[in-house]
Amino acid sequence: MAFNLATILHERVKITPDKPVVHFGGSSWTYRQVDEISARVAGGLRAAGLRPGSTVALQLPNLPEFVFAYFGILKAGLVLMPLNPLLKAPEIAYHLKDSDAAALVTWAGVAGEALKGAADAPGLQIFVASAPDGGLPDGTRRFEELLAADPADVAQTNADDTAVLLYTSGTTGRPKGAELTHFQMFMACTVGGEIFDYRPDDVSLLVLPLFHVFGLSSTLNVSVRYGGSAVLVPRFSVDDVLDALERHRCTVFCGVPTMYVALVHADAGDRDLSALRSGVSGGASIPREVIRAFEEKYPGVVILEGYGLSETVALATFNASATERRAGSIGRPVWGVDVRVVDGDERELPPGPDNVGEIVIRGHNVFKGYHGNPAATAEAMRDGWFHTGDLAYRDDEGYLFVVDRKKDMIIRGGFNVYPREIEDVLHTHPAVMDAGVIGAPDERLGEEVVAFVVLRAPAAPEELVAHCKERLAAYKYPRRVVVVEDLPKGPTGKVLKSELRRYL
Amino acid sequence: MAFNLATILHERVKITPDKPVVHFGGSSWTYRQVDEISARVAGGLRAAGLRPGSTVALQLPNLPEFVFAYFGILKAGLVLMPLNPLLKAPEIAYHLKDSDAAALVTWAGVAGEALKGAADAPGLQIFVASAPDGGLPDGTRRFEELLAADPADVAQTNADDTAVLLYTSGTTGRPKGAELTHFQMFMACTVGGEIFDYRPDDVSLLVLPLFHVFGLSSTLNVSVRYGGSAVLVPRFSVDDVLDALERHRCTVFCGVPTMYVALVHADAGDRDLSALRSGVSGGASIPREVIRAFEEKYPGVVILEGYGLSETVALATFNASATERRAGSIGRPVWGVDVRVVDGDERELPPGPDNVGEIVIRGHNVFKGYHGNPAATAEAMRDGWFHTGDLAYRDDEGYLFVVDRKKDMIIRGGFNVYPREIEDVLHTHPAVMDAGVIGAPDERLGEEVVAFVVLRAPAAPEELVAHCKERLAAYKYPRRVVVVEDLPKGPTGKVLKSELRRYL
Repeated sequence: MAFNLATILHERVKITPDKPVVHFGGSSWTYRQVDEISARVAGGLRAAGLRPGSTVALQLPNLPEFVFAYFGILKAGLVLMPLNPLLKAPEIAYHLKDSDAAALVTWAGVAGEALKGAADAPGLQIFVASAPDGGLPDGTRRFEELLAADPADVAQTNADDTAVLLYTSGTTGRPKGAELTHFQMFMACTVGGEIFDYRPDDVSLLVLPLFHVFGLSSTLNVSVRYGGSAVLVPRFSVDDVLDALERHRCTVFCGVPTMYVALVHADAGDRDLSALRSGVSGGASIPREVIRAFEEKYPGVVILEGYGLSETVALATFNASATERRAGSIGRPVWGVDVRVVDGDERELPPGPDNVGEIVIRGHNVFKGYHGNPAATAEAMRDGWFHTGDLAYRDDEGYLFVVDRKKDMIIRGGFNVYPREIEDVLHTHPAVMDAGVIGAPDERLGEEVVAFVVLRAPAAPEELVAHCKERLAAYKYPRRVVVVEDLPKGPTGKVLKSELRRYL
Repeated sequence: MAFNLATILHERVKITPDKPVVHFGGSSWTYRQVDEISARVAGGLRAAGLRPGSTVALQLPNLPEFVFAYFGILKAGLVLMPLNPLLKAPEIAYHLKDSDAAALVTWAGVAGEALKGAADAPGLQIFVASAPDGGLPDGTRRFEELLAADPADVAQTNADDTAVLLYTSGTTGRPKGAELTHFQMFMACTVGGEIFDYRPDDVSLLVLPLFHVFGLSSTLNVSVRYGGSAVLVPRFSVDDVLDALERHRCTVFCGVPTMYVALVHADAGDRDLSALRSGVSGGASIPREVIRAFEEKYPGVVILEGYGLSETVALATFNASATERRAGSIGRPVWGVDVRVVDGDERELPPGPDNVGEIVIRGHNVFKGYHGNPAATAEAMRDGWFHTGDLAYRDDEGYLFVVDRKKDMIIRGGFNVYPREIEDVLHTHPAVMDAGVIGAPDERLGEEVVAFVVLRAPAAPEELVAHCKERLAAYKYPRRVVVVEDLPKGPTGKVLKSELRRYL
């Protein structure tokens, strides 16, 4: 069962050696170049004494160095643990400890926090990318040193060895490290490419963070597996994204709803975005209104929504095409994946919007387990099914509709209220840019519905309450609407409800 | 790492339920039908008490029942052991015992030998397909009973569980059971389909025996994985094949060299074979002359030669296209597979026809091991490389040229003589239909070169000796040419040299 995920890169060199695999700024790197550079990184990591199976933390923004390091780590038979560059020292310390990381590759721009976080990790090897001359912190080495090492062959890992240790974004509790194998990662990008109908002449805009599975697997890996190119954009801004879309004639944009919202309200000027054919949306649910407005503003683009989690290597369900998609639905299970909606006793529920239950998933894409946490693994994996904690129903044709996170559901006076439904209604108000709804403790009802909104035009809270009252059952509409500057969000644009509760 | 190879069938039902997956005689079975029928077979096998991981021998010609049983066995989580329907009782007994088979599915046409062979396997459950009314042998059940069982869900096997136990054709010694996992079988048909550029509108002619990996994986599985159709032809005859090619407008023909030879010499009449685009050749090396003649006779068809073994799920190297192929070469390694040519000390040899060594292979396609035979596994798998026993060299661009089987090499007076080279020269003589060259014991030289030929036109042995003498070095040309009616061959058309030696 020998298999290494880096094969997706290495094999393309035989087919399209001189094609760009990544674009960044004004530069490009071909398949041959990235294959050679990553082989050197692998050789350098091995020469540094790192042994196959050890974990390497990678804390870089979407720079070419991320791609070099990623494939280098895989080729060396090491385990990649990608980290959000914005993590603070105590968070970094937690990840390094929980994962037993042997090395950390970080970036000069964030190395201060990283080094503080690494202080309690004795023996950890630290490599810093882009350190200025004379500015290399003590006890660290330049990442660029690795690029001068002798190249290593691709390590003969097993298909079921862990390739990526992905800490779940953790909207509650401490992050857990989902172990994703070479096999699972390969299946995810193979199935993803087949669903997106990804072709060698496709060009993907990669602004989703590479430390997240949506950017890493569904965007970068799909593009590499099928011989396309990816345009790296390290930070989302409408101008950077629109410029890159035009300049590289991008065909596929993978994004989260907040990005689509921003692009809907952007001034695209006279930019030529005619190459763009597909917008893949995931990470959080996208309001129907945003899809409609986006496709109207950017003709020729079809937004296809999918659903998945770190534990399912992103893609578990998808709306495969414009003709097959259902508005408001996350689509149907992807190739080789079973999805059920079950009640509290693990019984499958019949179709219909009244039959809301938990989404459970099994198939090739389901993770191996949480690193060093058999209790959490056992809690999530029951009877061979991964329990997502997301609530949904399905229709007669198997399309799934997420109603909310299980733990975000509000119980008001004995009635179930799904915040997402309220948020969708708020989004239909022209003044509302963004909305997050939670339950506030209430003596009489148990919980009361409270909405936080970000406005793009002036509107009184009472007006928004009235807007909801008109459109929702009496037990559902928010009695309180609070206008805020911004909503707390995770890396994929999911509103962090736990943070929002602190606003109360 | 849950994965079941039957997913390749089951998932297509969601996409093209009403498309034929197999044609046979005047009938067709759609994806939905075969999925339902095989689910019943799975249910029937489970109801018969067979537990996941047990082995089921399947001894059927290329009939739809093979396909039903194959996917049924996979869905039930059982291990498929396909057997040549022509095996004699002692051979069947050997296979059943060596594999610890729990059940045997056989066919009324060959059930006599099968039952004799099964006599020493107590507890073996036997199912007979196509038994005439009142003609069911004692102690057996009708295979068709299984089709009436309640359907079973697809068993949640692991990707590294054995899916198929494939006994190697065994040109010498007793056959050994190569264990091929769900993962390996999936990779083989995925990579195969990508190389053949297989599309849902492709139609494959399936006359290669399904008990062999070339027919099972490279033909049937590729076709199912990518939503095509396969036309089953149980026995090779030029008329049956030509009729089927025309009638179903087949686009892809997978065959062994003897089939191409026969089709070159066939009278195709005014049949319209214009749909045919690709001839995949494997199983044995195809003479260049045959490729030339075939493509001249059937314009529009390109013959692409590949190479592989049961232990590598058929496909290890391939000539990917008409522009990339090299005459006489087996091509280059397929996606994710490493191939080297090594000397007796496992050192990789440089390119060039003088650097003949053994082909060794590693990658996703390399088998798990020989069932119950760790010694043979260790002998074949050294340093992570599977040792094929085939001799070859490679050119500067990595194209491989097989010179012969290691054990078939003749050493004449201290010089290495590769029988295949002599056979190729004999094939260029217009009177020669087929040729097999071996070494005969010789007191003075150690071995002497002897050729056996099948003629299509009269020719004196002396004339053939002279033909070779003109074209080959003095130490190589055969001093003796023997005209025979037929050459002994294995199921893929490989001349059985061990049998040929008995002719001496």
